[in-house]
Amino acid sequence: MPAAFLKHPFMSQHALSEFDERAMVRAMLAFEIALAEVQETSGAIPATTSQQLRDALDGVDWDIDAIATGIASGGNVAIPFVKQGRAKLPAALKRYWHLGATSQDVVDSALMLLLKPRLAALDNLLTRCRTAALALMEAHADTPMVGRTLMQQALPITFGVKVSHWAVGLEQSRRRLAGVELPVQFGGAVGVHSGWDAQGLSFMDALAERLNLAAPVLPWHTDRQPIHALGTALDAIAGAAEKVALDVSLLTQTEIGEVAEPSAPGMGESSSMPHKRNPVRSALIRGGARQVHGLTSTLLNVYAQPLERGLGEWHAEWAPLTESTLLVEGALEQLAVLLEGLDVYPEKMQRNLAVTGGGIMAEPVARLLTPHLGPDAAKALSAEAAEIARQQVRPYAEVLTEVLAKYSDAASVTPEALRDACDPALYLGSSAQQVARARAWLIPTRDV
Amino acid sequence: MPAAFLKHPFMSQHALSEFDERAMVRAMLAFEIALAEVQETSGAIPATTSQQLRDALDGVDWDIDAIATGIASGGNVAIPFVKQGRAKLPAALKRYWHLGATSQDVVDSALMLLLKPRLAALDNLLTRCRTAALALMEAHADTPMVGRTLMQQALPITFGVKVSHWAVGLEQSRRRLAGVELPVQFGGAVGVHSGWDAQGLSFMDALAERLNLAAPVLPWHTDRQPIHALGTALDAIAGAAEKVALDVSLLTQTEIGEVAEPSAPGMGESSSMPHKRNPVRSALIRGGARQVHGLTSTLLNVYAQPLERGLGEWHAEWAPLTESTLLVEGALEQLAVLLEGLDVYPEKMQRNLAVTGGGIMAEPVARLLTPHLGPDAAKALSAEAAEIARQQVRPYAEVLTEVLAKYSDAASVTPEALRDACDPALYLGSSAQQVARARAWLIPTRDV
Amino acid sequence: MPAAFLKHPFMSQHALSEFDERAMVRAMLAFEIALAEVQETSGAIPATTSQQLRDALDGVDWDIDAIATGIASGGNVAIPFVKQGRAKLPAALKRYWHLGATSQDVVDSALMLLLKPRLAALDNLLTRCRTAALALMEAHADTPMVGRTLMQQALPITFGVKVSHWAVGLEQSRRRLAGVELPVQFGGAVGVHSGWDAQGLSFMDALAERLNLAAPVLPWHTDRQPIHALGTALDAIAGAAEKVALDVSLLTQTEIGEVAEPSAPGMGESSSMPHKRNPVRSALIRGGARQVHGLTSTLLNVYAQPLERGLGEWHAEWAPLTESTLLVEGALEQLAVLLEGLDVYPEKMQRNLAVTGGGIMAEPVARLLTPHLGPDAAKALSAEAAEIARQQVRPYAEVLTEVLAKYSDAASVTPEALRDACDPALYLGSSAQQVARARAWLIPTRDV
Amino acid sequence: MPAAFLKHPFMSQHALSEFDERAMVRAMLAFEIALAEVQETSGAIPATTSQQLRDALDGVDWDIDAIATGIASGGNVAIPFVKQGRAKLPAALKRYWHLGATSQDVVDSALMLLLKPRLAALDNLLTRCRTAALALMEAHADTPMVGRTLMQQALPITFGVKVSHWAVGLEQSRRRLAGVELPVQFGGAVGVHSGWDAQGLSFMDALAERLNLAAPVLPWHTDRQPIHALGTALDAIAGAAEKVALDVSLLTQTEIGEVAEPSAPGMGESSSMPHKRNPVRSALIRGGARQVHGLTSTLLNVYAQPLERGLGEWHAEWAPLTESTLLVEGALEQLAVLLEGLDVYPEKMQRNLAVTGGGIMAEPVARLLTPHLGPDAAKALSAEAAEIARQQVRPYAEVLTEVLAKYSDAASVTPEALRDACDPALYLGSSAQQVARARAWLIPTRDV
Repeated sequence: MPAAFLKHPFMSQHALSEFDERAMVRAMLAFEIALAEVQETSGAIPATTSQQLRDALDGVDWDIDAIATGIASGGNVAIPFVKQGRAKLPAALKRYWHLGATSQDVVDSALMLLLKPRLAALDNLLTRCRTAALALMEAHADTPMVGRTLMQQALPITFGVKVSHWAVGLEQSRRRLAGVELPVQFGGAVGVHSGWDAQGLSFMDALAERLNLAAPVLPWHTDRQPIHALGTALDAIAGAAEKVALDVSLLTQTEIGEVAEPSAPGMGESSSMPHKRNPVRSALIRGGARQVHGLTSTLLNVYAQPLERGLGEWHAEWAPLTESTLLVEGALEQLAVLLEGLDVYPEKMQRNLAVTGGGIMAEPVARLLTPHLGPDAAKALSAEAAEIARQQVRPYAEVLTEVLAKYSDAASVTPEALRDACDPALYLGSSAQQVARARAWLIPTRDV
Repeated sequence: MPAAFLKHPFMSQHALSEFDERAMVRAMLAFEIALAEVQETSGAIPATTSQQLRDALDGVDWDIDAIATGIASGGNVAIPFVKQGRAKLPAALKRYWHLGATSQDVVDSALMLLLKPRLAALDNLLTRCRTAALALMEAHADTPMVGRTLMQQALPITFGVKVSHWAVGLEQSRRRLAGVELPVQFGGAVGVHSGWDAQGLSFMDALAERLNLAAPVLPWHTDRQPIHALGTALDAIAGAAEKVALDVSLLTQTEIGEVAEPSAPGMGESSSMPHKRNPVRSALIRGGARQVHGLTSTLLNVYAQPLERGLGEWHAEWAPLTESTLLVEGALEQLAVLLEGLDVYPEKMQRNLAVTGGGIMAEPVARLLTPHLGPDAAKALSAEAAEIARQQVRPYAEVLTEVLAKYSDAASVTPEALRDACDPALYLGSSAQQVARARAWLIPTRDV
Repeated sequence: MPAAFLKHPFMSQHALSEFDERAMVRAMLAFEIALAEVQETSGAIPATTSQQLRDALDGVDWDIDAIATGIASGGNVAIPFVKQGRAKLPAALKRYWHLGATSQDVVDSALMLLLKPRLAALDNLLTRCRTAALALMEAHADTPMVGRTLMQQALPITFGVKVSHWAVGLEQSRRRLAGVELPVQFGGAVGVHSGWDAQGLSFMDALAERLNLAAPVLPWHTDRQPIHALGTALDAIAGAAEKVALDVSLLTQTEIGEVAEPSAPGMGESSSMPHKRNPVRSALIRGGARQVHGLTSTLLNVYAQPLERGLGEWHAEWAPLTESTLLVEGALEQLAVLLEGLDVYPEKMQRNLAVTGGGIMAEPVARLLTPHLGPDAAKALSAEAAEIARQQVRPYAEVLTEVLAKYSDAASVTPEALRDACDPALYLGSSAQQVARARAWLIPTRDV
Repeated sequence: MPAAFLKHPFMSQHALSEFDERAMVRAMLAFEIALAEVQETSGAIPATTSQQLRDALDGVDWDIDAIATGIASGGNVAIPFVKQGRAKLPAALKRYWHLGATSQDVVDSALMLLLKPRLAALDNLLTRCRTAALALMEAHADTPMVGRTLMQQALPITFGVKVSHWAVGLEQSRRRLAGVELPVQFGGAVGVHSGWDAQGLSFMDALAERLNLAAPVLPWHTDRQPIHALGTALDAIAGAAEKVALDVSLLTQTEIGEVAEPSAPGMGESSSMPHKRNPVRSALIRGGARQVHGLTSTLLNVYAQPLERGLGEWHAEWAPLTESTLLVEGALEQLAVLLEGLDVYPEKMQRNLAVTGGGIMAEPVARLLTPHLGPDAAKALSAEAAEIARQQVRPYAEVLTEVLAKYSDAASVTPEALRDACDPALYLGSSAQQVARARAWLIPTRDV
């Protein structure tokens, strides 16, 4: 299928170039060689076997197409890989090749090996996003903007606090991923190291160490917690990135215009409409994230696998898991650039704060007036003045002063108090404190 | 990613070779040329323009990589394709290229063009499956086997009726797909043919005719019913195929052994366990179907797209829709071979019918005895005899005769009646009628 | 769980009151009585049996709690229902109760009976939505507004054409649902009418007729096409409704304000912010639709059911299918009110059309100037003028005239032509034609 | 809808009785009172206010129906609850009620309060399952059975090691859930504690402490990591339980019969088929788990919520999150009973080990013969003998001896070695070590 046109645009190009069929062959080979090393160390096979295997297969030109074609017979890539590998070995070595391993050992372990650098890349990207977010938080800790609930203007916040919320979400997802383990797989045909008895678990642990993967409690051929934990952690990152992209999409709307995606030559241009600058990065992030959710849904539904090996359920994990990883990496690459270069327009935020004619300040005004007029009258009056201000396009404080003049109960409300109550920049709640708190939480002590 | 190892094994290799980046370029080009033809016919652009475009672009070597790379700036493949196409045209022709079209017109229409032969392929494969199923139904219309509910032996059916149920499911999904329309997309920048007025809809209809696609009521940039209808129809086929593969998986279990996947050299062999013949085709079908369900889940969740163009939602459709198609085609290729070559073991079915010692015939026996003993005693007695037969591994009828001897009320039950009540082959209900009815429904009158 | 607080708000209250445990008992009873009638008619059981059953059970006070509690033992509601029913019958009648039926026959058929009026209600609601949409289309066929792609202002459309697109989506989903069949279920223990032979299928067909349900080709205990077709058709309605709610949500944003949900006392009020009017109906529609997508995802994943009865897969259908129905009905009730009372603000649409200073008209202006200046200069000039107009907050046509004065090549462009090219109301493409075409398609000929 | 018939059977009845509308009112009230306490402590409102609120509302009879009905206007339950609460207060207290809080603060916090005991219940149930699994592991550490891959007999394992794999999966999911935090929600209208400035965060932290919930870094109105983490952790439990139920379903098949669900009066009986004992608990577990996956899919898709409050996305969380919890609790109740009372049939396992005539021991036999005959001949010979043994229903070792007699190369293979190689009980690999290792991992040191 035209993946380069329809799917790769959402993925990390760098990751795509690193994570291909040849890389998978290398990973499977790394597993097999490590297995021989481990067996050799324990005396299960002759010394120097692993070096002989290495020598025999070093620089070998694997026939990727033949491996791919061979999958049809056995249903997974390890079978034709092992067969091709064995054919390349001198007769005396064949018996030590893939010894005691099953296809699933090879495939699961190879995938973990391939995912390991990807997870490191995700951590780096999330750290980059965090740095960019911290800069935005600092720069805009005091930039007022309107907060919007159910997409309606509500009350003032700062842009800094909004970014803090994004950053906390992203960092939580980073920490969650950091806690996910990538275990080696090694259990043999039915997961009990048939023929190896007590050595089986030692091999498994030694393999984990040698391949720099986690050692599982037991082989996990049909205990797919590791896949579930990884898949859902990836989905959480996708969601955290999607949230930012959704906000950016909304804030870049022509009528709102409070932020814009970083401009770049040709980026987001419309061929027919010169005035447009499309939020392309947000579209790609959102498009990728939605795909991740569907792929994750497959992972949830194939968790339960029958007896000692899945019958389709295992097979159904491969593409969703690896594609999710590449989609999330792609989304984070976009997000890092987006956060690093986001254009922020405080003056547009100011203008939007005024667009209701002060309506958004009706609450603090009502608060101010309540001791004088009681809550109901205070609310009614503040709302009425806001409506007049909006219709006549006049400052809210001015209209309020006129309206209040009729109420002797409110005589003691000073013009200053009124002006202050109408000023969004004075009604930012804990915005600054939240930015500070997020900052302290985001930056681990040792990094400060 | 190593798609050739992890994803393509579930797909149709034939379809993969036909449905690639070059095919997508051809389809986008076909759209653009057809658009020029339509505009030319209506006099909107000079006569011979379309021929000039064709001449200018005929045999052109498109730079696929450049198109792929160019997607990053605009977020979809049409933008770099249109740009590259325009660059290849003489100055005088440039203005007639992609005239009045928007990226989504090109991408949506090109996908519909590419999916059309795929849907035809699916229809063919489902017809092949139907033919194979009809042969199995005929061959096994009278082959008794045990029916199993909640995976427990229940009462006899025939293998023919089981296949009939498979066939009806598959054929229903074929008919559903046959009713799905692939509409052309043409609406221009905001879906109202800006600048073309009344001509816009005529262009759309003429394009549909020329490209042999359906003419939609209106442009459907953010009315994604066609995608939803197609995606869910594909999922229904996946489900119908998965059902067959699930049954085959269960019936091929070592202890059951009533059917086996067709054997082929190397197919389903286990490298380490010579006695095994793995149901690889079923695994691939099930593995593919599970992936389709997740991809469909994405399609459901991106149906609602904002205003006049999706912001990520549209983008998120491309891969799931096309991949579902290729996965379903792959699953059906496996299924056709599986049904055409399925090994059926009637004698093993016979043996399994006997495995409960007659327990599964306790119901008809109880029926027979009820007029004599009342329903409760009849049930108790038939169950008791079944248990004895199972434990002593003796024929049910024999044990029943002994047990019944103690009940004078049952004296008039003849041995023949008893034997018949114990014979699964005489308790097949409407199995034969169902096979006949399914046959009549499956074969449209004109084909008989 | 607190369903009345957390789930029922998204559902139709009317449907909730009709579709409860007692209704399900009535539906199961209707199935059993109809079965007796059918068997009586064919002579399989004594004449008057069904009337006796009816008499015996008429006005009986079913113990709903006992039925609910009894489910634990057998895993479905039919088992304790049948047991309780049998206990209420005189001894002589007991044997004719539930004769030849299996639990799944009762449950599936009862659900179809209960869903039938719900589907009729959905059709009514969709027809109500269609009528409301037609009125909006007519009223606003010529109301210009800006079209937005990727949530950026693009080019003018009309509000009428936008509503047409909504209406076509909704009507397509209505027609799709109308094509979905609700088949009776009747197959006995293993789906082959054990003990009834050829009569089995006749009973099934007669039951369908008597219960006013569709007659399936064969029993469909594990051929779940009917559930898949229904579930996905419901999801398509959810999606079509969600699309409208998404647009309304976006168009009601404070800064955009082009439409508002119908006001009602207390509706959408914020306790703390008097200026707010929350789009509550849109929130409920969107909230419901998202839940439907997840429920549908379950239906896709349980389609494939093993052998002659699901082992959990069937059970997993009940709640998702019925809840989807009630959620969709709830969403449509909201949508009907929303469309019938939608406040539309053409003057706000006008204002937003001007917000880019004419930028959105740069395309038609460039078109006008291209014959004079060539496409590149035309584009550049129209964009430049738009930017000046936006910054100086002056009319686009005025700025254009000044800028053009410097270009002698454009001397022949008349002021009228320029003014027209800047007028969104003259650049509506096929909007009017689309409204007319949608109207013709929406209203079936006989209804005009 | 008839939830008591269609949905509650999958849920914990105990949890359903605890977690209802009244409980939700109590939880919302607890939040509001705690808020007053916190504000009182900090001096923000008069001392004794919280006690006055408590006194005023103590024993009040909340009108649940009115609250439920009131949801329609505002879209969430907090609005009518707060309104009804305020109406019940003396005038002087009204202003201190719900002060500084927004609806989402109330709903999110109340849900966390309600979920807290449920999560404790899940932990208890998983601990019960662990205990039951440990007992099975110990009892069957040396019980040989056949391992099955792709549902085909492969090589021997023990039942103990199978249970160990189940137990590790379940315990991993328990530990994952234990790491999930239930944070209080408190941010006010737009998440920045409008009007409270620095006090806002102190209130939030104090509320968390008082309500015994976690204190979040920041309010999380639209940062839904906590919901995602919780929802996916629940899904992981569902998957781990589903895996056990799937295995039990397969092992209880009539032809396999190695385990059976615990029997109980009436449990799993079939009304029409006296010989059947349906695996009802497994069906309910699997049925529940499949529903959880779909509900989780909704949670993934609504993670990204716009700006400062979701517009449908938040609303769409309520039912899926709470229902998942109750479904998982229901599944674990079934699972605990199932594991505690599982009937295990070692003799049936023995019989199934022999069903291939020794084919499953062909691998160890080939291993034994390889040094004598070379790997290819060893494999061929061991497979050939297995086929003969299967067809003639004779012991594998016997046939092997005969066949080997023809090969002088194998003369030195002793009959003892041959017999041992054919004995499944001597080819259990690391089964015993795995059971021991799992045991050590499952039982935390302090509990030994």
